[in-house]
Amino acid sequence: MLTLVIGNKNLSSWSLRPWLVLKHFGIEFEEVKLPLDTPAFHRDIVKYSPTRRVPVLVDGAITIWDSLAIAEYLNEKVQGRAWPADAAARALARAVSAEMHSGFAALRTHWPMKATGTASVQLPPEGEADVARVQQLWHEIRSQYAQRGPWLFGEYSIADAMYAPVALRFRHYGAKFSSEVAAAYQQQLVHDAHMQAWIADSQLEVDNNWGTPA
Amino acid sequence: MLTLVIGNKNLSSWSLRPWLVLKHFGIEFEEVKLPLDTPAFHRDIVKYSPTRRVPVLVDGAITIWDSLAIAEYLNEKVQGRAWPADAAARALARAVSAEMHSGFAALRTHWPMKATGTASVQLPPEGEADVARVQQLWHEIRSQYAQRGPWLFGEYSIADAMYAPVALRFRHYGAKFSSEVAAAYQQQLVHDAHMQAWIADSQLEVDNNWGTPA
Ligand SMILES: N[C@@H](CCC(=O)N[C@@H](CS)C(=O)NCC(=O)O)C(=O)O
Ligand SMILES: N[C@@H](CCC(=O)N[C@@H](CS)C(=O)NCC(=O)O)C(=O)O
Repeated sequence: MLTLVIGNKNLSSWSLRPWLVLKHFGIEFEEVKLPLDTPAFHRDIVKYSPTRRVPVLVDGAITIWDSLAIAEYLNEKVQGRAWPADAAARALARAVSAEMHSGFAALRTHWPMKATGTASVQLPPEGEADVARVQQLWHEIRSQYAQRGPWLFGEYSIADAMYAPVALRFRHYGAKFSSEVAAAYQQQLVHDAHMQAWIADSQLEVDNNWGTPA
Repeated sequence: MLTLVIGNKNLSSWSLRPWLVLKHFGIEFEEVKLPLDTPAFHRDIVKYSPTRRVPVLVDGAITIWDSLAIAEYLNEKVQGRAWPADAAARALARAVSAEMHSGFAALRTHWPMKATGTASVQLPPEGEADVARVQQLWHEIRSQYAQRGPWLFGEYSIADAMYAPVALRFRHYGAKFSSEVAAAYQQQLVHDAHMQAWIADSQLEVDNNWGTPA
């Protein structure tokens, strides 16, 4: 049995990604949730990860930290079905996923993920540029792969999981869309049943003050 | 024929990674070098990449930006030989490679890669922590895989390419080593024939003022 160690569902953008991959590919796992930025987090995370960050996947003797490495590991478990089957789409999916993994610093900093509620926060120019780049990328790829299905490359892939937290940021902070195609894809990500379950759990955390330092 | 678009060999840590993967797995490619931080770079990079960054790999109609996505693409080209063959080692190799891809911000900022020369630059505590983490990781993995060969996981893999720029940073800034095992591995990375060729080209750039804004 796999174990996925995650942070608060309301806050932990990196945790959401492998969680969605596990759910979408029907891989069973046990969830361990640690409250970010609390003494309990710092006490417990060292049992799981040398980087002291979530997410972490534990599969028997194998421990994998980092969302993208976990995604590639899960892709192997499902015989490569977690990336697009066609080589050109797969190369592009890996490029946009890696771009998300190491980029969009301004967007991440100024619009931290919140799965619940709404807020109004003005972005600096670099943050606006990040929003524009995400929407351009969604617009171009969705326009190209529309016939194959509703996800970024048609069928669900790791790329959808990588961009899922941005869909929640756009929702929380009320991002304006420059493209209908991009707006429709954001709705696709948010209204996904697994995403809705994650959002419902986040609301419970907030309602119960779970993970709030005393 | 593949084309790899890179930045200055003296400076571009991200470019070095896929270049080494191509060389170590004997994949033929054409090299296009753009001078970072010059008008020529900004004029030419838009022909290759939507993120306006190097490295970029072009394979016919397929364009892949981002070092890690390029590495995974090349791994497919060599039938998976660019990651360790055994699943546990492969999972660990992907974890440490992804950790490098999105982490070590203080080390990258305060000790930018220089393939030539030496300098003395004091690191802030977060930078020291990054250096310690790299050395701990090298020490642990090399201690475990020593029997299989001289590279991080024994045979050469993408993980060695991901950590190659750090070996040059440690050389340029004269990092102190807390472990003999880690120090020996740094030497292995630096004295590799392909790395030596890259360093020689870097020296030519510096000697000829190549890529220096007028
Ligand atoms: N590159 C990592 C980033 C993980 C990360 O930054 N996780 C945050 C939460 S979303 C964390 O664990 N922060 C806790 C801390 O730094 O103490 C990944 O992709 O998994
Ligand atoms: N995540 C990217 C990072 C690429 C990157 O930051 N490249 C730098 C040079 S090493 C660059 O192109 N900078 C030019 C610029 O930002 O104008 C990768 O892994 O390839």
